Amino acid sequence: MALKNKIKNKSFNIIKKGTITTVPGFYASGCHCGIKKSRKPDVCVIHAPEGGICSGIFTTNNFLAAPVIITKEKIKKAGNLKAVVVNSGIANSCTGKQGYINAKKTIDIASKYLKISNEEIAVASTGVIGKQLPMDKIEDGVKKCSELLSPEGGHNAAEAIITTDSTTKEIAVSIKAENGREIIIGGIAKGSGMIKPGMATLLVFITTSAGISKNLLDKILHKEAESSFNSITIDGCQSTNDMVVVMTNSKSGIYIENKDSKYYKEFKDAFSFVMKDLAEKIIMDGEGATKFIKIKVLGAKDKTSARKLALKVADSNLFKTAMFGQDLNWGRINAALGSAGCDFDPEKVDIYMEDILIVKNGIGVDFNRDKTKKIMKGRKVGFTVEMNQGKEEFEVLTTDLSFDYIKINALYKT
Amino acid sequence: MALKNKIKNKSFNIIKKGTITTVPGFYASGCHCGIKKSRKPDVCVIHAPEGGICSGIFTTNNFLAAPVIITKEKIKKAGNLKAVVVNSGIANSCTGKQGYINAKKTIDIASKYLKISNEEIAVASTGVIGKQLPMDKIEDGVKKCSELLSPEGGHNAAEAIITTDSTTKEIAVSIKAENGREIIIGGIAKGSGMIKPGMATLLVFITTSAGISKNLLDKILHKEAESSFNSITIDGCQSTNDMVVVMTNSKSGIYIENKDSKYYKEFKDAFSFVMKDLAEKIIMDGEGATKFIKIKVLGAKDKTSARKLALKVADSNLFKTAMFGQDLNWGRINAALGSAGCDFDPEKVDIYMEDILIVKNGIGVDFNRDKTKKIMKGRKVGFTVEMNQGKEEFEVLTTDLSFDYIKINALYKT
Repeated sequence: MALKNKIKNKSFNIIKKGTITTVPGFYASGCHCGIKKSRKPDVCVIHAPEGGICSGIFTTNNFLAAPVIITKEKIKKAGNLKAVVVNSGIANSCTGKQGYINAKKTIDIASKYLKISNEEIAVASTGVIGKQLPMDKIEDGVKKCSELLSPEGGHNAAEAIITTDSTTKEIAVSIKAENGREIIIGGIAKGSGMIKPGMATLLVFITTSAGISKNLLDKILHKEAESSFNSITIDGCQSTNDMVVVMTNSKSGIYIENKDSKYYKEFKDAFSFVMKDLAEKIIMDGEGATKFIKIKVLGAKDKTSARKLALKVADSNLFKTAMFGQDLNWGRINAALGSAGCDFDPEKVDIYMEDILIVKNGIGVDFNRDKTKKIMKGRKVGFTVEMNQGKEEFEVLTTDLSFDYIKINALYKT
Repeated sequence: MALKNKIKNKSFNIIKKGTITTVPGFYASGCHCGIKKSRKPDVCVIHAPEGGICSGIFTTNNFLAAPVIITKEKIKKAGNLKAVVVNSGIANSCTGKQGYINAKKTIDIASKYLKISNEEIAVASTGVIGKQLPMDKIEDGVKKCSELLSPEGGHNAAEAIITTDSTTKEIAVSIKAENGREIIIGGIAKGSGMIKPGMATLLVFITTSAGISKNLLDKILHKEAESSFNSITIDGCQSTNDMVVVMTNSKSGIYIENKDSKYYKEFKDAFSFVMKDLAEKIIMDGEGATKFIKIKVLGAKDKTSARKLALKVADSNLFKTAMFGQDLNWGRINAALGSAGCDFDPEKVDIYMEDILIVKNGIGVDFNRDKTKKIMKGRKVGFTVEMNQGKEEFEVLTTDLSFDYIKINALYKT
């Protein structure tokens, strides 16, 4: 079911233990400054001294956390991004003017220790909503991180951005180019799968040594986000702090101007792979999740319908609890599809679990229950919904809804 | 938090042990015909020999169960409805042509035993999706119900329409009119709160002795549904079998032609009360639910936003699990509001739990935690979200999300 298997004839290689600092010219570090009670790393700096073009995607929640407001604005304007400071433990969300001042101050602190303009620094936070950042601890942490910056520090940064995640999420790939040159793309992500109470969910930082035009990078990032970070759902809840930030330098010596440029396709494919890989790692780390489920909707009338239908099934508590109970209750898939608010003829809908036809023309058919029971016992289950009313498709990755989801989210106290 | 307390200066009285057959000229009965393994009642007939104007509301799910297709069409055309046959245990949904034939045949059977035209009979089903009705058992059951019809049979019918409900849901009210006359409105409902696997959720049958124009009844039913059955949510999942059917006769001797008619206002208020009462009874019977939560959104820009915002909070798994955990995690309310896809200024939003201000201008404020903890321990919790950006409001009733929801919905096997 891996999303990554969609890329055929790979023109890139996965680098073993690759991370954001596998990319030449990128330095990172992480340390514990005292926000998390656990003494785990809670602040990090990612630094590219030469800087370059940047791009970003941000949560569409009306309640934007202070760091989201600031970084969003910065990336819109910035020609050059040289550093990002991230803290975990406190989201700096719903914190008003003081929160905004603190996020700005975090950048000023980083500017002082990194000795670069505050215009070239972005900021991100993840953690509990409604609490103010302890600025003395942030100052100590950013100072320490500035001293610890290293081309081997990517993993430390990956550790400092996670909250309830059970593992870090890291990747790097290389594209071989002419004259022994290569383009590297690295990425780290944070996302605990099940959204921890009051926690923001998704932070992603991608670095690359490709020179690239701002316009093209924006386009690729937004397009590829649709089939990666915007195609995963755990519980349909949305955070106030989500962001994906891409930093570049031009260390590869290769510049990709537009779609006709050499290595454009290779870069796009590799970039897409990095995003899908990190998205899949977030789903696979879903706390409490016992199943990893792919819902593929085919033959929808339009793209919006395809997306709505797939997400409606993926977010249906009844479907998710049936998956947890390992019961192939296809009636819940039908009911979810029918309630998506899309115009379709239910008598044309076929549903498959893996390659087994379970619903034909909207009605359940006889199928081999021994086979389906065996599949339901596994960790990965794929469903294909063939709408048979158009050509558009959409694929979503999700998890089941288990006792542990309730435990994690109900027993936590603010 | 009772919805019913919204009606001031009541012009009607609640009748003790009132039900659909409290209304003169309505007969009902229920019996076990063999669909449910539990030997509990699973088929019923509601019969008004004189018949009258009818109205109905039906699920908007694309996958319409056969009885919904038939009854919807019938009520659209019918001048006169004299009987409804309802079975529980099998939903006759996603059953194709055979399901349609069986629903039609159920009506023919009722026509034979009740000795009325099949044009005057409606049908409803609730239960497991994807199974065909056992028509021999249905025939036996309808025959028996026809023989058992009684003006005291309302409670038996109420028992026969429930599935996982722990109690029947019944009510009747009377409006005193001139010359010793009175209008009676009765109602029964089925809804287990938590949607049982593959089960349809909501069936409601309302009877009244008011003479009323079809046009006016349709209007009142659709308007009042918004603030009753369309204002409750357990898990955001929608059934393929939902319907609300209203049957009338003119036994009261009072005819309500239009909004200027005498007793129009009294009838509308009492009818509204009956719908809200049944809706609230459905929520209060939510299996596994430990909390009954009212979300009131005030000051929204428009009605659609008010509705979307209230429902987004009510359907948020994170909010619902926090309620189960008795933790006042207001960040989850903010995050849910912000993700509703409505245009609003987050810095204007105030949130109250009961009368305690917990969020001012989008930011958490200091409040008396002892007081809020005490409220959170109770069974009923009310939240008011003051958007401060317009004049529209919407109120939703919901439940928390508990371990028992998972248990009920995951451990059930189709």
